[in-house]
Amino acid sequence: MKRMQLAEDLSFSALIHGLWRLDEWELSKEEVLTLIEQCLEIGITTFDHADIYGNYTCEEIFGSGLKLKPSLREKMEIVTKCGIQFQSPNRPDIQSHHYNTSKDHIIHSAERSLKNLQTDYIDVLLIHRPDPFMDPAEVAEAFSRLRSDGKVRYFGVSNFKRQQYDMLQSYLDAPLVTNQIELSAYNLENFEDGTVDLCLEKRISPMAWSPLARGEIFTSQDERAVRLRSTLQKVADETGAAGIDQILFAWLLSHPANIMPIIGSGKIDRITSAVNSLPITLNRDQWFDILQSSMGHDIP
Amino acid sequence: MKRMQLAEDLSFSALIHGLWRLDEWELSKEEVLTLIEQCLEIGITTFDHADIYGNYTCEEIFGSGLKLKPSLREKMEIVTKCGIQFQSPNRPDIQSHHYNTSKDHIIHSAERSLKNLQTDYIDVLLIHRPDPFMDPAEVAEAFSRLRSDGKVRYFGVSNFKRQQYDMLQSYLDAPLVTNQIELSAYNLENFEDGTVDLCLEKRISPMAWSPLARGEIFTSQDERAVRLRSTLQKVADETGAAGIDQILFAWLLSHPANIMPIIGSGKIDRITSAVNSLPITLNRDQWFDILQSSMGHDIP
Amino acid sequence: MKRMQLAEDLSFSALIHGLWRLDEWELSKEEVLTLIEQCLEIGITTFDHADIYGNYTCEEIFGSGLKLKPSLREKMEIVTKCGIQFQSPNRPDIQSHHYNTSKDHIIHSAERSLKNLQTDYIDVLLIHRPDPFMDPAEVAEAFSRLRSDGKVRYFGVSNFKRQQYDMLQSYLDAPLVTNQIELSAYNLENFEDGTVDLCLEKRISPMAWSPLARGEIFTSQDERAVRLRSTLQKVADETGAAGIDQILFAWLLSHPANIMPIIGSGKIDRITSAVNSLPITLNRDQWFDILQSSMGHDIP
Repeated sequence: MKRMQLAEDLSFSALIHGLWRLDEWELSKEEVLTLIEQCLEIGITTFDHADIYGNYTCEEIFGSGLKLKPSLREKMEIVTKCGIQFQSPNRPDIQSHHYNTSKDHIIHSAERSLKNLQTDYIDVLLIHRPDPFMDPAEVAEAFSRLRSDGKVRYFGVSNFKRQQYDMLQSYLDAPLVTNQIELSAYNLENFEDGTVDLCLEKRISPMAWSPLARGEIFTSQDERAVRLRSTLQKVADETGAAGIDQILFAWLLSHPANIMPIIGSGKIDRITSAVNSLPITLNRDQWFDILQSSMGHDIP
Repeated sequence: MKRMQLAEDLSFSALIHGLWRLDEWELSKEEVLTLIEQCLEIGITTFDHADIYGNYTCEEIFGSGLKLKPSLREKMEIVTKCGIQFQSPNRPDIQSHHYNTSKDHIIHSAERSLKNLQTDYIDVLLIHRPDPFMDPAEVAEAFSRLRSDGKVRYFGVSNFKRQQYDMLQSYLDAPLVTNQIELSAYNLENFEDGTVDLCLEKRISPMAWSPLARGEIFTSQDERAVRLRSTLQKVADETGAAGIDQILFAWLLSHPANIMPIIGSGKIDRITSAVNSLPITLNRDQWFDILQSSMGHDIP
Repeated sequence: MKRMQLAEDLSFSALIHGLWRLDEWELSKEEVLTLIEQCLEIGITTFDHADIYGNYTCEEIFGSGLKLKPSLREKMEIVTKCGIQFQSPNRPDIQSHHYNTSKDHIIHSAERSLKNLQTDYIDVLLIHRPDPFMDPAEVAEAFSRLRSDGKVRYFGVSNFKRQQYDMLQSYLDAPLVTNQIELSAYNLENFEDGTVDLCLEKRISPMAWSPLARGEIFTSQDERAVRLRSTLQKVADETGAAGIDQILFAWLLSHPANIMPIIGSGKIDRITSAVNSLPITLNRDQWFDILQSSMGHDIP
């Protein structure tokens, strides 16, 4: 599979497996291991986590599978996130929904992720959301400590706009390596507000969450969804794609910004279908046809 | 009182006294002097002016008090502003409301401020509003001249967004030292549009005008005000604060951006109450509770 | 005529002649030549084209006139654009309306412009619109090739916002020399969103398209147009201008950003009227009066 270089000694698979609903798939440890192995087999080596996924449980479920065959660790890249806190029976000490990017919390959260994931290191740790109460000097200290302790190799952000990215970066002694943002033909916000331009300017490959628009696109009777679905189907027919999901992936993968879509499915058939979208290259007519169908109006 | 370092040889008190309504307080020269001395006694050493305050009269009223005890000048920092012009019996030569950031006007306005304030130097001169007709090269010339003449030590801006800040800064031979912006739990604009991020990125401490939201927050029956007031009261109860005004100050003072709220009261009791908010530290639960109460919705 | 320096060995006339409707003027080759000569005579030396103007025909019409007197080429600066494609009988190979900033297209389009314009070189080639599907590395390669081949001297953009400008510039080995944007007293978007600030910050003179707001301002019964027209007339009376068109030009020409309005008329009388606006200097009262009249509210 095509790979994206994030740093001299770090690359991700162009498609990333997302574990945010791992808890809902009701897999045994053995089945988790099988899913991991199946992903690796088809070239998906990058796994995307967050401390909070599945009400703080997904990392641990993944770790329980990985523990059955620790040698797989070196064949994969693990991404996880920190910085959001909310009330949960699994975190009785947390009082309210808020962001926390204090030095202590970042370090503590990363260490807990290491333990849950049954690994010695995280490849990339992301700040999950821009925190309006952020002390960037504390974030910088936490990052330095985690790196020098060998616990985290690289750092990135998620859902950051330009002003937040530039601000945080100005406090760090190493470049952020990615920005995980919502990107799909159905949700153009980050294309329209300059966040994709930011990624191109900073030479970072964005990770795309909800590349299938949370599935809404497949079922919604919303005018936009209906219109876009029809265009996606037309392009699927033109390219011989198996379905519009492949065109949604291809629309992102064809873009010059080296976008890495996250596929969040527990079914290997679905994952394989996403992988099969990699050879599909959209031409400009098709790419813009989809864009304009989503916008609902012609480009100027 | 906690102080904020704006430059190697310039610091401000964390709370700043604002004189924009000095004319309404109907103080004698002696009472002005007393107010100044009371502020200095409790650690407020920074005084915020503008040429236009009180219909162009406030600087002069302040100066008349300071003149009674000129030795106080060295114990304080004086900020004033220029760049707005409007019709007034006190400025019969002005035809219309407009901005003026021409070289001549900036120099002329600063010199008039020096005279009115009865001082030899201004610590920081601010451009009051971003001027869409600004010639930044002229502003740079004015600043250089005023600094080399010893009339103004440092320069800053007010109400500037990132694009205006970066543009003007690119013409200057010294860093701007502050951006005075509207900041309060009731008015989140500068938190939301990246202006606070800008201040963090540029390592400048913002001055916060209307930290109490012009008092609206205390009386308005607006849904947002009612909701926010109730949260502020809850936090006041939790922290033992004397009133919600202290929580409004603490909300800004707890923020990592080194925000310096401007208190614009002529009553030493009110000013002292603001000072007493300094030891109150909000925790993240409280800070976000107030934020979300103001936004009217949960953070993502 | 006042000239704007775009690079060490490139300057434009403060007023630029725009050819986007050249096909509608129904001129013979000889009449095209006459129009060119008349423009040059009154100091307008810069001519603005795009590959697509007049349904892909305007460059060729201009070239047919220029061919009658090739010695004029050295007395003028030619700007043209590429990057938009749409269906047309004149481009049967194009399937849909989209942007194309691929290396091949940029080079191919520039070469076709050279041929149509009957010239050996383009002074400035602009990317016509920010392309959401842009590969900036390809644009950089195309620019390098065209410059080293002597086909294009300088490069710029059109309708770019800051994020797009900074992104593309970061891939180029020479500074962009202009940004052609919509600017008029009737359309304040680029004043309000920081694009004019960007031009000042980057020291580039913007070219202003639709400086007369496509003529709407003269006829529209829209509240804003009526209000603005009345203010423009007042200022025309005050300054002795021949008409409000001159005030619209003067409003841009008085601005410190070295704005170069594009006049798109085939009638030498209209063009001369625009040139006659050059000596009209608006004072701050007038400039802000027009601004506020367009905004429909007072400045803060």
